[in-house]
Amino acid sequence: KNKDSVILRNLPKNHISHYDLNKLTISPDALTKKEEVLILSPMSKFLPEYWENLNKLTYDHSLISLGFIFPRTQEGDQALKELEDSLKRSKAQNKLNFKKITLLRQDSNSLKSQAEKDRHAFKVQKERRSMMALARNSLVFTTISPTTSWVLWLDADIVETPPTLIQDLTAHNKPVLSANVYQRYFDPETNQKSIRPYDFNNWVESEEGLKIASGLADDEIIVEGYAEMATYRPLMAHFYDANGDVNSEMALDGVGGGAVMVKADVHRDGAMFPSFPFYHLIETEGFAKMAKRLGYEVFGLPNYLVYHHNE
Amino acid sequence: KNKDSVILRNLPKNHISHYDLNKLTISPDALTKKEEVLILSPMSKFLPEYWENLNKLTYDHSLISLGFIFPRTQEGDQALKELEDSLKRSKAQNKLNFKKITLLRQDSNSLKSQAEKDRHAFKVQKERRSMMALARNSLVFTTISPTTSWVLWLDADIVETPPTLIQDLTAHNKPVLSANVYQRYFDPETNQKSIRPYDFNNWVESEEGLKIASGLADDEIIVEGYAEMATYRPLMAHFYDANGDVNSEMALDGVGGGAVMVKADVHRDGAMFPSFPFYHLIETEGFAKMAKRLGYEVFGLPNYLVYHHNE
Ligand SMILES: Nc1nc2c(ncn2[C@@H]2O[C@H](COP(=O)(O)OP(=O)(O)O)[C@@H](O)[C@H]2O)c(=O)[nH]1
Ligand SMILES: Nc1nc2c(ncn2[C@@H]2O[C@H](COP(=O)(O)OP(=O)(O)O)[C@@H](O)[C@H]2O)c(=O)[nH]1
Ligand SMILES: [Mn+2]
Ligand SMILES: [Mn+2]
Repeated sequence: KNKDSVILRNLPKNHISHYDLNKLTISPDALTKKEEVLILSPMSKFLPEYWENLNKLTYDHSLISLGFIFPRTQEGDQALKELEDSLKRSKAQNKLNFKKITLLRQDSNSLKSQAEKDRHAFKVQKERRSMMALARNSLVFTTISPTTSWVLWLDADIVETPPTLIQDLTAHNKPVLSANVYQRYFDPETNQKSIRPYDFNNWVESEEGLKIASGLADDEIIVEGYAEMATYRPLMAHFYDANGDVNSEMALDGVGGGAVMVKADVHRDGAMFPSFPFYHLIETEGFAKMAKRLGYEVFGLPNYLVYHHNE
Repeated sequence: KNKDSVILRNLPKNHISHYDLNKLTISPDALTKKEEVLILSPMSKFLPEYWENLNKLTYDHSLISLGFIFPRTQEGDQALKELEDSLKRSKAQNKLNFKKITLLRQDSNSLKSQAEKDRHAFKVQKERRSMMALARNSLVFTTISPTTSWVLWLDADIVETPPTLIQDLTAHNKPVLSANVYQRYFDPETNQKSIRPYDFNNWVESEEGLKIASGLADDEIIVEGYAEMATYRPLMAHFYDANGDVNSEMALDGVGGGAVMVKADVHRDGAMFPSFPFYHLIETEGFAKMAKRLGYEVFGLPNYLVYHHNE
């Protein structure tokens, strides 16, 4: 669908002009076809585990570009500095082989307090996620290049994924595909390490959700995962089956930003993260709706887990 | 508003990694500050007058990048060929000094017949303009670079503008600013050359327009300039005053695509051309609404004329 071909004409000084007829593919054989992947992470905090996990990805690093956006806060400056230190260290060890790395700093306001209970409070969600939407848009539309085949949204607090994450997700050949974000924790009841669902933004629309939406004023939003607004939407987080096929797919209507693979054409066609209520949805949930309005299907992998940091 | 700073870190092979701390400005002194401008033209037909006019623009060509998108039709292939011939000729004469030229070919379907009466028929507008929206999105999100300050949308059939077009429009320092698109013609009544309004997509919302919108089904659109749907919206085309100040501004709610200057941050924040009904608007008119939803103001210059080709 809508695969534009790109003819790049560069006109370097004192050089004969030349063509670069770019035969961009976006296919389930991404690695074999040497398709370029752009990994994008909004980053308010630098977690060494995130960076280590990223570096362990087995997709050819020379086909991967990285893009980061930091809030213009003390916390953001700290994260930027720590990432730069890590870049320098990797570089010194000759272990930094990514194609390109772009670091962006937001100018728009960021909310000060980022402690989990503050940032999850229902009433700050609209402002917070609207700001995140703008940050994500700036990030993708500054870093996407004519040679990008896939965009992987990977939050900076996703600390553990299969090392074959890119191959695994691209193999499904879906326009938008979300992994299931879980969290490791220590269960005091059983006295054992365990896992629990973390991201509730991967969901299927429900009758109740539509009913709530139809009763809202134009500028009100629904954010999934809050008791204040019970949508009874089937949440992908609850569809995890430890014994199920890791490749089983489910159609989704909303996605979170934890680990989402997007065909670059979806963004190039205009799919962005609404910072304003779009069908009463914003940010990543609004993005899923926008991708659908642009004619693309959205999926998730309930049994394919990635892990969120535990604060 | 939302001026992100870009830190580009390139990691060329066998080179020490380096920073390019990009102090991007977007200011009313664009030329003095050497701000880069990206001129984007969807092109179904190559008109030599368009190309000549473009080449006469007095803004420093080394600060200008060009982007074109052609329909994947015989007509589009012909236009691509003719543009390439013109590029070669300019190059041979050492007159081609643009920073970069990108040529894109749509893969999405284009409507076959492009004769004026066909393409303006009310019932084909939705399909046609939805396709144009996708083409514009692909074009801007493929060609925008971290160093772009301004994006000038210039239709490929705009054959005459002041040579200072870029300086003039940027000087207003508006997020979105549309020139007034007129057309030269021979008036058989007076037996004289004359001018007439051409583009009716630059408008101010009206009570009647809002009333019509509120009565429409979710997926219906309003396209301005059709008797079938009289909105009584004030149209910028009718505000032209030959004796008025060429710099007078008017706030707009809808814009056309003829000659529109956009701050690159507006696109980077996510302003795209909806290919689906967005507040019952699509393409350039929907873009204006989206820019407004993202918090930007939209303006037009009623007395600043540019001229559309006369078929
Ligand atoms: N640029 C930017 N990134 C942020 C900001 N706040 C959070 N992030 C990052 O955005 C991602 C998602 O945010 P997070 O607070 O973890 O959301 P949650 O997991 O849904 O609670 C993470 O990668 C954060 O590091 C911000 O203000 N600006
Ligand atoms: N890429 C592309 N450009 C087109 C297509 N149709 C028209 N155009 C270009 O888009 C611009 C606006 O289209 P046009 O037909 O002139 O619209 P009008 O002036 O509103 O009648 C012009 O620059 C055309 O050359 C198409 O199917 N694909
Ligand atoms: Mn998180
Ligand atoms: Mn035209």
